[in-house]
Amino acid sequence: MNIDGNPTRTIWPLENAVEIIDQTRLPHEFVVHRLASLEDAAEAIRVMRVRGAPLIGATVAYGLALAASRDAGDDALHAAGDTLIATRPTAVNLQWAVRRMLARLLPLPVAQRAAAAWCEAAVICEEDVAQNQAIGRHGANLIQAIANRKPGPVNLLTHCNAGWLAAVDWGTALAPVYAAVAAGIPLHVWVDETRPRNQGASLTAWELAKHGVAHTVIADNAGGHLMQHGRVDLCIVGTDRTAANGDVCNKIGTYLKALAAQDNGVPFYVAAPGPSIDFALASGREIPIEERSAEEVTHLSGLDGEGRIVKVRLTPEGCPAANPAFDVTPARLVTGIITERGVCAASREGLAALYPERV
Amino acid sequence: MNIDGNPTRTIWPLENAVEIIDQTRLPHEFVVHRLASLEDAAEAIRVMRVRGAPLIGATVAYGLALAASRDAGDDALHAAGDTLIATRPTAVNLQWAVRRMLARLLPLPVAQRAAAAWCEAAVICEEDVAQNQAIGRHGANLIQAIANRKPGPVNLLTHCNAGWLAAVDWGTALAPVYAAVAAGIPLHVWVDETRPRNQGASLTAWELAKHGVAHTVIADNAGGHLMQHGRVDLCIVGTDRTAANGDVCNKIGTYLKALAAQDNGVPFYVAAPGPSIDFALASGREIPIEERSAEEVTHLSGLDGEGRIVKVRLTPEGCPAANPAFDVTPARLVTGIITERGVCAASREGLAALYPERV
Repeated sequence: MNIDGNPTRTIWPLENAVEIIDQTRLPHEFVVHRLASLEDAAEAIRVMRVRGAPLIGATVAYGLALAASRDAGDDALHAAGDTLIATRPTAVNLQWAVRRMLARLLPLPVAQRAAAAWCEAAVICEEDVAQNQAIGRHGANLIQAIANRKPGPVNLLTHCNAGWLAAVDWGTALAPVYAAVAAGIPLHVWVDETRPRNQGASLTAWELAKHGVAHTVIADNAGGHLMQHGRVDLCIVGTDRTAANGDVCNKIGTYLKALAAQDNGVPFYVAAPGPSIDFALASGREIPIEERSAEEVTHLSGLDGEGRIVKVRLTPEGCPAANPAFDVTPARLVTGIITERGVCAASREGLAALYPERV
Repeated sequence: MNIDGNPTRTIWPLENAVEIIDQTRLPHEFVVHRLASLEDAAEAIRVMRVRGAPLIGATVAYGLALAASRDAGDDALHAAGDTLIATRPTAVNLQWAVRRMLARLLPLPVAQRAAAAWCEAAVICEEDVAQNQAIGRHGANLIQAIANRKPGPVNLLTHCNAGWLAAVDWGTALAPVYAAVAAGIPLHVWVDETRPRNQGASLTAWELAKHGVAHTVIADNAGGHLMQHGRVDLCIVGTDRTAANGDVCNKIGTYLKALAAQDNGVPFYVAAPGPSIDFALASGREIPIEERSAEEVTHLSGLDGEGRIVKVRLTPEGCPAANPAFDVTPARLVTGIITERGVCAASREGLAALYPERV
């Protein structure tokens, strides 16, 4: 999407290197970060310079291309895949991208693998963009239907960042927003700040502002109150992994918003590109939930009055904290899943009808 | 309760002045702040040096005593009451304390009013302590019942700070915790950090640590996930105002936890001293919800690496934010209300049975 009017992606290849936007520096600094090796790619995923299921998949693909440029032998590629899979446990795109790259590369003669890896990584990125554009079209229809039956802007609530910063471009949950805005539908986005890492306050607010979309940041606690007062017309969130039965794993706190949406009759949609749907998982109960560092809860970075990025402690010294990074929203709370193939019910039957070749 | 073993209250009188713990400096600094005038008392409530419905009531009472020491005439006392009522719109204790003080003072000869005001303020504080001790006893019975039927510690979740820092002593939601710990019941408290002002991370974590109660701070987003996994045995929260039908107004985000508790069969209790129950309000829909400064969402204070309290910005520059401070949890989501007179159903009938003289 646009940064001050200039179309920009989140990841792009150079000669034997890859560049990304370092998302740990947003919203205060726009820094392009270079990945020159597999290790750089793994580090970028682990410390969340890149995050969001689709962008993690793209970074994994380029990480394997960087590895193949150094050593394209079977052992090296398998080891590179293992290194990448170990960076984050929850997003299924990570394993999906490793499997897809290895399936493409291992049958080839070793001498051809590096070139094929760079090509395949670029194809994965283009497919992600095309999928997200399609999600945008399908989701914009839902927004248009609401706009048709109420005056004033449609108020959409989203949690975390499933925007273009979470993908290669467009985003998943925000693709319908960008498509709706492009179609001239009046729209306003409630942005959950998304503690503890504040991806909403720092990333979603930043990308919506840069593209020129009306938005308001709220504490994660506020969404239920806004729904009780008719100030939310629909919710759209992303997903790190959706099970075959429609249970949705997404950023911690998503489940609470889905409960509030159901309690207030607000439609609750999940934008899920095909690769984030895991048909091998019968239900969300089986998804491993990443437990991240307690320091993400007890400490927080921001910009001080003199323009420096400073880390501050919020809690008493030595305070114990827990930090589960994701939760699972049961399919019964999900109004529909927006995929690149259309919108379906959050159920085994709904997903199977759209992806018959995968069940 | 205890600070490093020393019993401490949140507010206490001196000769013609009042001292409070400045809660805007916690958990990083323990600062005693002196209120020498009505204006000091109003400022302390407005900027939240004191907060929590019961402590606001006590501060209002002492604010009127400070005012009466300067000018105890009818006009001066009415004006002082108006000044105090204007500080915060949601807590009913504020209006309750003004009404009670004026009802006590206005019938007296002017010369006797100042002394009577200091006495009445002290009585209000003692009553608050006694009410909270009684809430502690009734709530501890609920905790004991859970401890009797499961091994290991009882896991209690609370939102915001309704501990002794929110009252004169003991607290409301945390009074049962302190009573249960005193009774030797093994207990662990999940502390919602409570964005945007982080009363959980800064105040509840601080007072539990100082008194020696096991606890873990979590992002507000995490409670639903913990309940889904059986890691919360009960919730107890406070209330700023409870309507006659049992609808509970409390810190923003309380409603989301009540929804999650219901969805997972976790008992959800509200600790409500008599003065916080507003029998004049038919339902929670009529409670005015305070909208606080957007800066509480976009900026945050904490301790930097060099031990200084620093304010940092989380969001992009100029980012719009909204900040409703409270929400209303419908009575249907509340398992019971713990009052100083016992535990009752969150309903008109339940409350009326305990407070027949007020309906």
